[in-house]
Amino acid sequence: MFESADLDHKVSKEEYKREEPKLREALLNAQFDLGAQKDFAVLIIIGGVDGAGKGETVNLLNEWMDPRHIVTYAFGPPSDEEAARPPMWRFWRALPPRGKIGVFFGSWYTEPIVNRVLGKCTDNDLQKYLDEIFRHEKMLVDEGVLLLKFWFNLSKDQQRKRLKALESDPKTKWRVTKEDWRRFKVYDRFREISEHALRETSTAGAPWIVVPGADPRFRSLTAGRILLEALKKRLAEGERREKRADAVPPMPQLDNLRLLRSLDMTQRLEKKRYEKLLERYQGELNVYSRSKKVRKHSVILVFEGWDAGGKGSAVRRITSALDARQYRIVPIAAPTEEERAQPYLWRFWRHVPGLGGITIFDRSWYGRVLVERVEGFCSQADWMRAYSEINDFEEQLVQNGAVMFKYWLHITKDEQLRRFKERQKTSFKRFKITDEDWRNRDKWADYEAAVCDMVDRTSTEISPWTIVEAQDKPFARIKLLKSLVEKFRTL
Amino acid sequence: MFESADLDHKVSKEEYKREEPKLREALLNAQFDLGAQKDFAVLIIIGGVDGAGKGETVNLLNEWMDPRHIVTYAFGPPSDEEAARPPMWRFWRALPPRGKIGVFFGSWYTEPIVNRVLGKCTDNDLQKYLDEIFRHEKMLVDEGVLLLKFWFNLSKDQQRKRLKALESDPKTKWRVTKEDWRRFKVYDRFREISEHALRETSTAGAPWIVVPGADPRFRSLTAGRILLEALKKRLAEGERREKRADAVPPMPQLDNLRLLRSLDMTQRLEKKRYEKLLERYQGELNVYSRSKKVRKHSVILVFEGWDAGGKGSAVRRITSALDARQYRIVPIAAPTEEERAQPYLWRFWRHVPGLGGITIFDRSWYGRVLVERVEGFCSQADWMRAYSEINDFEEQLVQNGAVMFKYWLHITKDEQLRRFKERQKTSFKRFKITDEDWRNRDKWADYEAAVCDMVDRTSTEISPWTIVEAQDKPFARIKLLKSLVEKFRTL
Repeated sequence: MFESADLDHKVSKEEYKREEPKLREALLNAQFDLGAQKDFAVLIIIGGVDGAGKGETVNLLNEWMDPRHIVTYAFGPPSDEEAARPPMWRFWRALPPRGKIGVFFGSWYTEPIVNRVLGKCTDNDLQKYLDEIFRHEKMLVDEGVLLLKFWFNLSKDQQRKRLKALESDPKTKWRVTKEDWRRFKVYDRFREISEHALRETSTAGAPWIVVPGADPRFRSLTAGRILLEALKKRLAEGERREKRADAVPPMPQLDNLRLLRSLDMTQRLEKKRYEKLLERYQGELNVYSRSKKVRKHSVILVFEGWDAGGKGSAVRRITSALDARQYRIVPIAAPTEEERAQPYLWRFWRHVPGLGGITIFDRSWYGRVLVERVEGFCSQADWMRAYSEINDFEEQLVQNGAVMFKYWLHITKDEQLRRFKERQKTSFKRFKITDEDWRNRDKWADYEAAVCDMVDRTSTEISPWTIVEAQDKPFARIKLLKSLVEKFRTL
Repeated sequence: MFESADLDHKVSKEEYKREEPKLREALLNAQFDLGAQKDFAVLIIIGGVDGAGKGETVNLLNEWMDPRHIVTYAFGPPSDEEAARPPMWRFWRALPPRGKIGVFFGSWYTEPIVNRVLGKCTDNDLQKYLDEIFRHEKMLVDEGVLLLKFWFNLSKDQQRKRLKALESDPKTKWRVTKEDWRRFKVYDRFREISEHALRETSTAGAPWIVVPGADPRFRSLTAGRILLEALKKRLAEGERREKRADAVPPMPQLDNLRLLRSLDMTQRLEKKRYEKLLERYQGELNVYSRSKKVRKHSVILVFEGWDAGGKGSAVRRITSALDARQYRIVPIAAPTEEERAQPYLWRFWRHVPGLGGITIFDRSWYGRVLVERVEGFCSQADWMRAYSEINDFEEQLVQNGAVMFKYWLHITKDEQLRRFKERQKTSFKRFKITDEDWRNRDKWADYEAAVCDMVDRTSTEISPWTIVEAQDKPFARIKLLKSLVEKFRTL
């Protein structure tokens, strides 16, 4: 993988002087088009050997292009807000919006590779990380991010020479630390692990680009030209960029047997019993919400369901057992301008609670495979891949200590009609019925198919769906509360 | 101040039962109108004596209204990201957008009052904090925030009874901590300081509302009704809400003598000397940017100036001496949807760097008193008050360790024309000329007056303006770099 980059590549002063101004102008023009079209974001990941010119190249790109539209992040140790959330959170919050260029130093590759080199994790752990990275990058690329991964290489000999040269010049002596020499000692191990990581994560959509780092002119022109070509190619594709659907087509509906139709919708709870159980479970929930064992987790509740399914009133039965300082409700409406400039999961990542927090999503990322699928707001390729992207997302949350609950509040089509009519009569519920609600009703069958697919594809062991028969509100609320309390009991 | 609230106010069970449903429905309706109009944000500040029902009231408001559009924040110790920025930053980031209700427990009042009670600061310190709070709240109110400040009161006797009652019930025993009793011991001192703080910060726009806290029914109906009346009054005002201009009118222009016209625009630097000085100052700047004494500050650079004044290229001369990982450039364009839903300084607060960071604002909060003033994007009252709001903002930054530089890049009207024409010829500079640039030129005199007022009113000892004669680019760049280096030298 590094064989070709190990050679002593060189570009002459004359050639550089001739080529640099042309490259610079072309890059500036491409950057302008990127900012004007705002079709996609560019994310440049910088990795490689110390002393191979990582920082210099990034500084140069900032000099060549308009630095006002490039944002460079160096990821050191996480802040305490970052440490309380899944490791990917800090990278999500730093993602460049469409039209901009983001540069990540110390990306999601740093920790896995360094930890493996230092023996802090096993080959299996590394493999797991790389698999996560692979899926994460695939998501970014599918979402339209132009992802460029540069690996700056030095052979062992070149690195030794480089460190010595820096040390011997009083002006650059400060740049070489003991840590650098310590890392030089594990060069071979670092190279071996890196090679493995690069191989595993080089994909058609986001291949690694290994740049020989010894000659500044060679590496600068190389990196600059690759960036330019990638930008130009992508800009030329424009709107015509092809979206490939995943291999698996949606389930055909061969008979009338569906998950939602198999539910027993006659389940009811009489008032007295309801009130007794409500008090009991709310009391238990209140105690759990203050318990140490729950507070070391984050708690995430997702509410989906038919319009008028009773989401709002069910949420209140939960929040009224909690302290307002502890929970946050995130009502999901149309994305804002800033959210539309990012991959679709970005707007949910920004609300991910830290440990000790409780977040209730009133509608959620499942909009992608429900309303966006049914209304055609995204392509089939987009919602088909969303199932696995969502599973990955939830896995990261759970791995980081989240306790997840996902509820589908189910009512029949007739019951919905009855509730719509009732609501139109009650003045202070007037805000709950819109024209859109009536339109959605017409697509009941499509939504039903989408819900069944959603449950089939995203009800996983670590994050199962609870389908709540919500024909009878008391029954539904108790089922919800009970499921919460029972889960907390097992923590 | 607390005399009336100390009395044993009571509401009977019957009255509460009769009034509560009406109040609830009215609140829900008002909240709906708030969300539909999206004209203003509601910020509720909760303070008062422990045990006076602060938490209970907030929970109740969440129960009465739609909790999806209320966000409650409890401010404990700051996170490390918060601690690296001015104390107000954490409150800015939690501000509710228009159409929503935010509840702050432990607001900007907590620390000053508690510190004074514990003797950790002097009367003078407290006075200074209260003055800052006064100005901050005035800004929020002027920006249209409906600010309600509730103080929940208990007499000393009532608090003792309350703590004992909680302690004797096994279900609520956990709520009384040693800390509560310790604080009870300083009740008189706490009351004295609080009374002073409340008096100093009760203004026409944001008066304190002291709520008797002993009887839950009395305090709930009181708080609920006040919130309802405030909401209804403000909703009814709608767009007609009167904006009062500050007392001071803009400076009349009686003669032709203006700051900008008094500059010596013939200053030049010949090429050889420029290159020598550029290398020297860039080198010095690079060293300073890595020095410990600079890195314990945050550095904020503000660039304002005429179109084609050379801001972009001047910024590059600075950034090319820095490491891309250390600085961030924030180009200020039209505000996004999320930014428009907040007070106008919000979008700058969100970019305030932590200690060790360098942020360069390419245009800035001064847009309020330049383009927004001249183009009539805000009322005269709005831009007149902006001067002192901006001074307050910058004072907070500097107090927190920011080193601030504010540059106005000045060229003559003729020179601008020459540069516009030149740029139209050069292909890779094509993005720099827009129709708007030509339109702005027509209002040169208005902008000139605005710039002079801006410098007069916001060039303060702690954050002075540097006016840069930018007719000759080399001269301007060196003047900029030199001012940076000289300031760093004195740190």
